[in-house]
Amino acid sequence: MILLKNIKAIPMIEENLIYENVNILIEGNRIVKISKDKIDAKDAYKIDGTCKLVIPGLINLHTHLGMSFFKNIADDLNLMDWLEKEIWPREAKLTPEDIELATKYSIMEAIKSGTSTLVDMYNPSSLIARSMEEMGVRGLVSYGVIDNEKPIDEKIEEIEEAFLEFKDSDLVTVNPGPHAVYTVSRESFIKLRDLALKLNTPLHIHLSETLSEVQNTIKEFSKTPVEYLDDMGIFNAKTIAAHCVHLEDKDFEILAKRNVSVAHNPCSNLKLASGIADVQKMLDMGINVGLGTDSSSSNNNLDMFEEMKFASLLAKVKSNSPTSLKAYKVLEMATVNGARAIGMENELGKIKEGFLADLAIIDLSGVNLNPLNNLISCLVYSANSSNVDSLIVNGKILLEGGKLKILGQDTLMNLANKRKEAYK
Amino acid sequence: MILLKNIKAIPMIEENLIYENVNILIEGNRIVKISKDKIDAKDAYKIDGTCKLVIPGLINLHTHLGMSFFKNIADDLNLMDWLEKEIWPREAKLTPEDIELATKYSIMEAIKSGTSTLVDMYNPSSLIARSMEEMGVRGLVSYGVIDNEKPIDEKIEEIEEAFLEFKDSDLVTVNPGPHAVYTVSRESFIKLRDLALKLNTPLHIHLSETLSEVQNTIKEFSKTPVEYLDDMGIFNAKTIAAHCVHLEDKDFEILAKRNVSVAHNPCSNLKLASGIADVQKMLDMGINVGLGTDSSSSNNNLDMFEEMKFASLLAKVKSNSPTSLKAYKVLEMATVNGARAIGMENELGKIKEGFLADLAIIDLSGVNLNPLNNLISCLVYSANSSNVDSLIVNGKILLEGGKLKILGQDTLMNLANKRKEAYK
Ligand SMILES: [Zn+2]
Ligand SMILES: [Zn+2]
Repeated sequence: MILLKNIKAIPMIEENLIYENVNILIEGNRIVKISKDKIDAKDAYKIDGTCKLVIPGLINLHTHLGMSFFKNIADDLNLMDWLEKEIWPREAKLTPEDIELATKYSIMEAIKSGTSTLVDMYNPSSLIARSMEEMGVRGLVSYGVIDNEKPIDEKIEEIEEAFLEFKDSDLVTVNPGPHAVYTVSRESFIKLRDLALKLNTPLHIHLSETLSEVQNTIKEFSKTPVEYLDDMGIFNAKTIAAHCVHLEDKDFEILAKRNVSVAHNPCSNLKLASGIADVQKMLDMGINVGLGTDSSSSNNNLDMFEEMKFASLLAKVKSNSPTSLKAYKVLEMATVNGARAIGMENELGKIKEGFLADLAIIDLSGVNLNPLNNLISCLVYSANSSNVDSLIVNGKILLEGGKLKILGQDTLMNLANKRKEAYK
Repeated sequence: MILLKNIKAIPMIEENLIYENVNILIEGNRIVKISKDKIDAKDAYKIDGTCKLVIPGLINLHTHLGMSFFKNIADDLNLMDWLEKEIWPREAKLTPEDIELATKYSIMEAIKSGTSTLVDMYNPSSLIARSMEEMGVRGLVSYGVIDNEKPIDEKIEEIEEAFLEFKDSDLVTVNPGPHAVYTVSRESFIKLRDLALKLNTPLHIHLSETLSEVQNTIKEFSKTPVEYLDDMGIFNAKTIAAHCVHLEDKDFEILAKRNVSVAHNPCSNLKLASGIADVQKMLDMGINVGLGTDSSSSNNNLDMFEEMKFASLLAKVKSNSPTSLKAYKVLEMATVNGARAIGMENELGKIKEGFLADLAIIDLSGVNLNPLNNLISCLVYSANSSNVDSLIVNGKILLEGGKLKILGQDTLMNLANKRKEAYK
């Protein structure tokens, strides 16, 4: 049992609602009681909430954890130069041990940033899922599929195997991740959709990220990428579509009608000059939009607070109105909407009795946060990952007072810095 | 004497140059020696540079320090609603004591973010200049002028008086700050220009911030704000123009020809939905562009690292190219170009023998910064203010190991939080 005592909270159950002073009891992996009155729990581990604020653990809806060695290794390049000359040759050399290390490094960075759930796309899935379990974070582990020599049926077998391996996990689920319309054939897409339907998992894809992706798809199939996928029934599976920067009006309508969730990655979209997704329009049309950092090699960090600020500020300039994507709405993207995207909206993303105990605690004494006025604005516009004090995932404390509870931060950092040298 | 031992450095004297391991000796307020070899300085206060990186202290080229009580007090509003309903009524009530406190709070936040020089626009000037001196930062203190009942000649007298009061200061200079073309008459503008020329200080203004400013000026004077000021010879004074979001081709040419320095404030411009300034085009045309945060009530912090990331990423999407505003260029904006804007390019903004000892030291052990690859990209794309370890200004250590040396952080924070309540 864990008891948060006299803490401020943003429960995300009602717009702009803030609990000024509550007690929150965690039993097992669930929030069991939230009360303004004193909660008796003698045996509980107590966390003093003075000058602290608790929010739902943040949900990073699109990332590639295994790429952390490539952070700041090659920047300010055109997308294809970056991929073909810098990233792919290095990825080809990555050993499973190094992918595990790079993934764990990213998970550590995410934990320190208040992120409790990670939606990843990388391989090998079982190794990544195990890393998440070992480090205690929640995750959707999407097996990234790009058509190559290996037959699609073999990949499907591997996905199913990894899915079964973690079927009973409290924390992780393996699912299919067809990379994009320009790297995956129609046949493979349909097989992966059927697999997602069979396993009852989401499908995780990149969609309409760049203008050239859209133009090439129209040239080849006379359809936008969104239409192309819709016409082959891909969205029958619960889909998480990363980016969606270049959408036509009909695309917005399809995404809304087919309940596709969008993972918005503002930093990555700017850094690669892909464009600015029209998030306010998506939300206005009822599309569920969550927030992701993409990999730390195209960002270059995994700071969801920074990502929230980018999201809100960009939406304002995109729609020519400072009233767009208000602070509370972007906080919803990083919590509630992320939970909905992975099908866990009934137990994740809010601070509510019965919900999973995934909580991030913010230390409100940061100089950047004060003088303290509106706490919701403060989180979105003033905060960064350094203001995260503690993280609880599935009822376990992973970070407390800024310190990792689970493994040595220095050890992991030294190892990663040593191993990354092989990929310079 | 201060000796930085075995430290990495980005001297900003040549594109992408990094010293992997140097010793830097400070005597009085100057850098006197930089050497790869051991420097003998028995009496020097020594700073161990292991796992540290030193850069020139950052120069925040446009801010309003006195507004920190209004941080996160009113967000997501249209500019005029924000100003008229939220900001101006509160500012009208601000007492000099509270302006001093709010200013000192902002200076503390700036120091903790690695900022050594602040270009401010607020009143009363002598109080702000004194606050900067007391806290040990360098600054240009622009007396903000908006035409009102008080005659312009009286204001000019006050500016001159404050200028003289700090004439011999090592740290601060008071100068005229005509607010904008829509708040200051032609007559006042010309008098303030003449004053700047007489005192040999820059003139600090807001220029072409919003589309409506440009449209209204064209309607009234048949000229863009840039043309309007140029035609009355305002740019004969060394001018720092904040924003410059909406420029026509001829405006770019005028700013270049007249050596106007631009203070780019990406966060504020996005947050108020003013637009995205075309910084890459300005730089291509030879315009000197520095970086500012604007006030913490329209940002909502004073983190120059965050501002650098916004600047670089926005320039890429604005110009449709990820090769725009490379990391080194934006670091130049925050150092070298800022120094040039305030006329101190020969002694500020670089790590060079004979230059002023204004230095920010970054702790490279931050999880967000690692694995460590390119240090310049790392500063711009991965870092935030929490990675700042130490700050030296004018040869004095203001921050060390993340702790303020000069005054109690908690005292200032508590006071500010207490007093800000009067303006809720
Ligand atoms: Zn991606
Ligand atoms: Zn301003």
